[in-house]
Amino acid sequence: MKDKQFLMIPGPTPVPETVLLAMARQPIGHRSKEFSAALREVFENLKWVFGTKQEVFIFSASGTGAMEAAIYNLVNPGDKVLSLAMGVFGERWAKIAEMRGAIVERITVPAGYAINPEVLKEKLAQDKNKEIKFVTLTHNETSTGVTNPLKELIEIIKEHGALSVVDAITSVGAMPLKTDEWGVDVVVSGSQKGFMIPPGLAFLTCSEKAWKVHENCKNPSFYFNLAAHKKNALQDTTPYTAAVNLILGLQESLKMMKEEGLENIYARHAKISGGLRAAVKAMGLKPLVEDDAIASKAITSILAPQNITVADIRKGLKDDFDIVVADGQGELKGKIFRIGNLGFVSERDMIGTVGALELTLNKLGFGNELGKGTGALLKSFS
Amino acid sequence: MKDKQFLMIPGPTPVPETVLLAMARQPIGHRSKEFSAALREVFENLKWVFGTKQEVFIFSASGTGAMEAAIYNLVNPGDKVLSLAMGVFGERWAKIAEMRGAIVERITVPAGYAINPEVLKEKLAQDKNKEIKFVTLTHNETSTGVTNPLKELIEIIKEHGALSVVDAITSVGAMPLKTDEWGVDVVVSGSQKGFMIPPGLAFLTCSEKAWKVHENCKNPSFYFNLAAHKKNALQDTTPYTAAVNLILGLQESLKMMKEEGLENIYARHAKISGGLRAAVKAMGLKPLVEDDAIASKAITSILAPQNITVADIRKGLKDDFDIVVADGQGELKGKIFRIGNLGFVSERDMIGTVGALELTLNKLGFGNELGKGTGALLKSFS
Repeated sequence: MKDKQFLMIPGPTPVPETVLLAMARQPIGHRSKEFSAALREVFENLKWVFGTKQEVFIFSASGTGAMEAAIYNLVNPGDKVLSLAMGVFGERWAKIAEMRGAIVERITVPAGYAINPEVLKEKLAQDKNKEIKFVTLTHNETSTGVTNPLKELIEIIKEHGALSVVDAITSVGAMPLKTDEWGVDVVVSGSQKGFMIPPGLAFLTCSEKAWKVHENCKNPSFYFNLAAHKKNALQDTTPYTAAVNLILGLQESLKMMKEEGLENIYARHAKISGGLRAAVKAMGLKPLVEDDAIASKAITSILAPQNITVADIRKGLKDDFDIVVADGQGELKGKIFRIGNLGFVSERDMIGTVGALELTLNKLGFGNELGKGTGALLKSFS
Repeated sequence: MKDKQFLMIPGPTPVPETVLLAMARQPIGHRSKEFSAALREVFENLKWVFGTKQEVFIFSASGTGAMEAAIYNLVNPGDKVLSLAMGVFGERWAKIAEMRGAIVERITVPAGYAINPEVLKEKLAQDKNKEIKFVTLTHNETSTGVTNPLKELIEIIKEHGALSVVDAITSVGAMPLKTDEWGVDVVVSGSQKGFMIPPGLAFLTCSEKAWKVHENCKNPSFYFNLAAHKKNALQDTTPYTAAVNLILGLQESLKMMKEEGLENIYARHAKISGGLRAAVKAMGLKPLVEDDAIASKAITSILAPQNITVADIRKGLKDDFDIVVADGQGELKGKIFRIGNLGFVSERDMIGTVGALELTLNKLGFGNELGKGTGALLKSFS
C-alpha cells in the first residue's frame, strides 16, 4: 500500500512526524544566531543521551565517518591496537586502524557470541609492557544482534590503562550506556538509529584522558579534526557547514527523548525485543543469539528455517505487509534475517510485525500454528 | 515575520517546496531496490550537471569532505602541489594538501582578483622537470565572489601535464563548467549551493587520467575511499549508509534542473547577478570585484560604505525584511557583505532584495535616492 512501508531494520529507522516536518523547513544560515541557539540545545541534549559532561561533536557523515574520526584523532602509525570483533562492525575498527598504520591484534568470536571478559582480561594481562594503547570494541553488533557486556569490558580495559574506543552506533538511545560513569574513553554513534532521524549525522565524544592522547596524535585529517570541532562547539557552531536540516530534526527528536526519559526508552526497547524473542521461540524459530543475557535489545537475528529462504521471508513481509526487515551481512547473508526495534518503534509495531511473520511463514509452508507467536508476544507484553 | 526568512547567502540556499516535501518522507532502506532506483537516476543526472561520462560519487559530508577526499585519493606525501588561491577556499586546498604531507607552492592574488593565466603559464613553464603533479584551484571563490577563467587555466594545466583539482562547490549548477569537454581532472561540489537542497551531501568526479593517479596513491582513508565508492556506484549503491532523505530531495531538485535546462539555469544566474551589479553601482555602492568579466554570477561582494557597518546593514535587512545576506570571511569580515543568488533564486527575489537594501541604507544615513537601485535593476532585467 502506498506510503505504508515500515522499517524494522537496524537503520535507517522510522522517523516521527514532528521530526520530518522540522526537516522540511527552509534551511537557516549555518552561521546564524538562530542556528547557534538550536546547536546549543542539541549539544546539551546529546551530552545527556551519552551520559557525559564532555563535548559531543557532530559530523556531517555516516557512522563510519565518526569511527574514522576516532582513529585519526588518537592513533599514530605504529601504535598497537587491540580490536575486539564479534561481527562486521567490530572488524571495521580493525580495518580503519590498519589503514592508519597501526599494529592491530584481534580477539574474534563466532557470530552470535559476545566478547568473553575473561579472555580479554587474560590477553591484557599478557601485555606486561603496556604496549597496547587502544582497545576498539562494539557495544551492540548490528550484524549479529549481540550486545557486549560493555561495563565489564571497560572495567578490564581501564585496569590495564589502554584507551577504550567504542562503536555505540546502534546502542546510544536504545540501551544503557553511561559514558562518564563507566569511564568509556571514546564513544561514536549515528543519527539513523536510536536518535530517530534519517542518516547523515555522526557523533563522537571523548574523555579527558583520550583528549590528552589526541593532543599527541598527528591527525592527518582536515575534515575529521577534533581540535577544530572542539573550538567551534564551544562557540555553538561547527567548523564546516553543518547539515542544518538534519540538525533541526535532531533538535526535535532529542526533545521527544527527554520527554520520554532515558530509562523509559531503554525499558521500551527491552520490552519489545524481549517480546519478539519469546514470539520467535514460540513459533519454532531459532534466534541466532542463544544467550538471553547478550541478546541485543534493538536487533534480533533469526535463523532461516530449513527449506525457506531469507529472500522469500523478506519478500513476503514486504509485498503483503509493507514491513522491511534486513538480511544477514557478510557470511550471514541468506542465513539469518534481522528485525530491528530501534528508535521510534512501539509495541503495536511489533505486534503487527510478529503477526505478519506468522502469516508469511505459514504461507511459505513452515507449518506454524497461527497465533502462537503473537500469543507469546502479548503474554510477554502483559 | 514568522516563516518569511529568505536566504541570499552563498549557501545554504533556498530549497523548493517539492524538495522539502520529498525530504520529509519516511526514510527508505539504504540497501533497498527503491533506493537503488533513486540513486541510479541521481547518478545519471549528476553526470549531466557535471558534464561528464565518468561516475559522480556522493559523500555524506560537507563540501570540505569532498576536498579532503580528492587530496587523499590522489596525493602521496612528498608530492608537489601548486595551489592557486584567491581567497579562503583556495587556501583550504593548500592546507589540506599540507596535512597530507605534500610540498605545496602557492600562487595567491589579492581579494577581488582572479588567477592571471599568464602568471600560471609562466610558473608552470619554469617547472621543466614536471615536478608539479597537481594544481588545485577554485572555480568560484565564495569568500570574494570571483570566478576564475577556468577553461583557460585548465588548458594551461593540461599543456603542462599536471592534474587539475577544482573546487566547484559554488559553481556547479550555477555557471558553465563542462568537465569532460574542458578536460578538468577532478571536480568537487556540495549540495547546499546550485543543487537547491540543504547541506549534507558532497560530490566528486574524476577523469580517467586522475583515476590512474588514484590507483598509485596510498589513500589513508577508509571513509573517503574512491575505490569503494566506484565499486558501489556501479551497483547503484554507496559503501556506507547514504543520507537517504537528502538524496531523495536531490532526486527531485535534479528533475527540476533538467526541466529548466542547464543553459537556462546559467542564464538566470547571470541575469540576476548582472542586475544586482548594475543596481549596486547605481546606488553609489562599490562591488569588491571591479572587473565584470571575473565577477561571480552567483555571489556579489559589496564594500561597506564609509560610516556604515556591515553588521548594521545585515541587521536592517534581516529585522525589517527577513532577508539574510552574508558578512565577509577572514580578513574581509566587516569590510564587505555578500549577496548570493545561488540556486533557487528568481528575479522577483532580487527585486525585493535590492529594494530592501535601498531602504536599509537610506535608514542608516547613506543618503541614497530611493528607487535608483531598483530602477537600474529593472532596466537590466528588461
